Amino acid sequence: MTPGERPPVVALLPAGELALDLAPAVRAAGLEATSDPAAADALVWCSWRPTGLAQALEAAPQSRWVQLSYAGVEHFLGLIDDSRTWTCAKDIYGMSVAELALGLLLAGVRGIDRYLRASSWRRLEQGTLRGATVLVFGAGGIGRSLTGMLGPLGPRVLVASRSGRPVAGAEALTAAEGREAVASSDAVVLAVPLTEETKGLVDSDFLADMKPTAWLVNVARGGVVVTDDLVRALEEHTIAGAALDVTDPEPLPDGHRLWQLDNAIVTPHVASSDELGAADLAALVEENCRRFRTGRPLRGVVDPAAGY
Amino acid sequence: MTPGERPPVVALLPAGELALDLAPAVRAAGLEATSDPAAADALVWCSWRPTGLAQALEAAPQSRWVQLSYAGVEHFLGLIDDSRTWTCAKDIYGMSVAELALGLLLAGVRGIDRYLRASSWRRLEQGTLRGATVLVFGAGGIGRSLTGMLGPLGPRVLVASRSGRPVAGAEALTAAEGREAVASSDAVVLAVPLTEETKGLVDSDFLADMKPTAWLVNVARGGVVVTDDLVRALEEHTIAGAALDVTDPEPLPDGHRLWQLDNAIVTPHVASSDELGAADLAALVEENCRRFRTGRPLRGVVDPAAGY
Repeated sequence: MTPGERPPVVALLPAGELALDLAPAVRAAGLEATSDPAAADALVWCSWRPTGLAQALEAAPQSRWVQLSYAGVEHFLGLIDDSRTWTCAKDIYGMSVAELALGLLLAGVRGIDRYLRASSWRRLEQGTLRGATVLVFGAGGIGRSLTGMLGPLGPRVLVASRSGRPVAGAEALTAAEGREAVASSDAVVLAVPLTEETKGLVDSDFLADMKPTAWLVNVARGGVVVTDDLVRALEEHTIAGAALDVTDPEPLPDGHRLWQLDNAIVTPHVASSDELGAADLAALVEENCRRFRTGRPLRGVVDPAAGY
Repeated sequence: MTPGERPPVVALLPAGELALDLAPAVRAAGLEATSDPAAADALVWCSWRPTGLAQALEAAPQSRWVQLSYAGVEHFLGLIDDSRTWTCAKDIYGMSVAELALGLLLAGVRGIDRYLRASSWRRLEQGTLRGATVLVFGAGGIGRSLTGMLGPLGPRVLVASRSGRPVAGAEALTAAEGREAVASSDAVVLAVPLTEETKGLVDSDFLADMKPTAWLVNVARGGVVVTDDLVRALEEHTIAGAALDVTDPEPLPDGHRLWQLDNAIVTPHVASSDELGAADLAALVEENCRRFRTGRPLRGVVDPAAGY
């Protein structure tokens, strides 16, 4: 940009707390922040809901880029097309989600969940991650962060993804190889986007292949697991337990069987949160605004065909 | 040792499962394993209790080395003197204990404990270790392992010890500096031996200095914490919570206040266990037997004056 040139205009919509929080990041990158789509070259969509986005896009005919502020884009797939570049926060929440996944994994494997429900000094059988095999589905930000966190604890880490892409500190597997490895894994962590391929991945066949001593951790999306099949496996103790930050249905209704089972841990979709990811999201928006201004490739580009 | 020379004799006592488990390690090092102290050059004491050890020592007048099979030696201090070399398993259980400490820390900081007690989908305030300050008392095997495990999670790690010895990945503090750092730490982990200096370290003054949002994790010995002072702090919510693998009294009696408080997590002294440490203990015994045979310095030597 040469002096005097008008900086690109970024509309932060819908108006609200997140838009107010992210406007400084847009300005820090030297772009103009507004709440008016009419003159916008780009949109930062400051909500996990798509409601209102179609209208905003129509009101912003010159916009060439849309930045979404969450990692999961399944609610936006009807809107995402090739006429604009779409980016999401896919790598931003990796650390925070991986941290919870590790906490859930340790709670299950070391028996902390069962001790928390006890009111008497009695030792139970417990495992360790050391020397265990941990199979992670998903080689994105979560899978990569979790692999790094698992390293010092000494398990063998397998990371399965559609492409079988390499992950430092893990053995990379394709999705099909990952499915094969279920039977020999001591823990399975789900960290995949929800797509046609991953929907219902963990069904009765998958669960039947798991070791009776193995834990399942889901920090992906509820729909990756067939809930009724999981409830049955937990009731029949064909797996050791499940720790779920996401459920189907979500929110999990009061009185649902998963609330009652003593080998299930449920956290209410808190692996990432606006507070935990705020600084990282602002940094991503600023970085992408700089890249947009100077015409460099943006981070976190959504592939409409792959669905993430 | 030259051919024909008689190998040193190691008595494994008291007879029992652990003695049977460790005998192969003694033999693998080329020493003779026996249950008879009379001809023993060394003793491997295969119990956490000292009962019977005084008699065994008397019956083994030529013995010059005693290997204890646990990390904590507080029950043995009356017997340990300079007439023999005493070694303990002080570094062996570090990984296993650090793993539980990390699990307890994450359970508290990420709110897993509170969600486990819930039966309804409701988000609570939660923290993260990322960017937090974790203060560890103890630079032994546990403190060093835990520091390594915390690294990828992104907290600032302070490790306080009597000597202020350096620990890779942490800022090293003396005990007095550690005490000063309590007020600015988001979590305090106790991983010190129980000595005259650490007994009652965490009392009402210590707890009053802690942040109201901070967690206390004790994987050391129950006596490092003044239980009544801790119960009061938890009841009055002057700290966020406490996760205790060790208690005073221990076992914690049924109906004790700590079982009822919903900001306390109690696990029944399971951070290390014979099963979790078995392979490492056998490796240590074999290694020390080799060193004993060839006159090299032994690993895990107890300093009778320091008490660990």
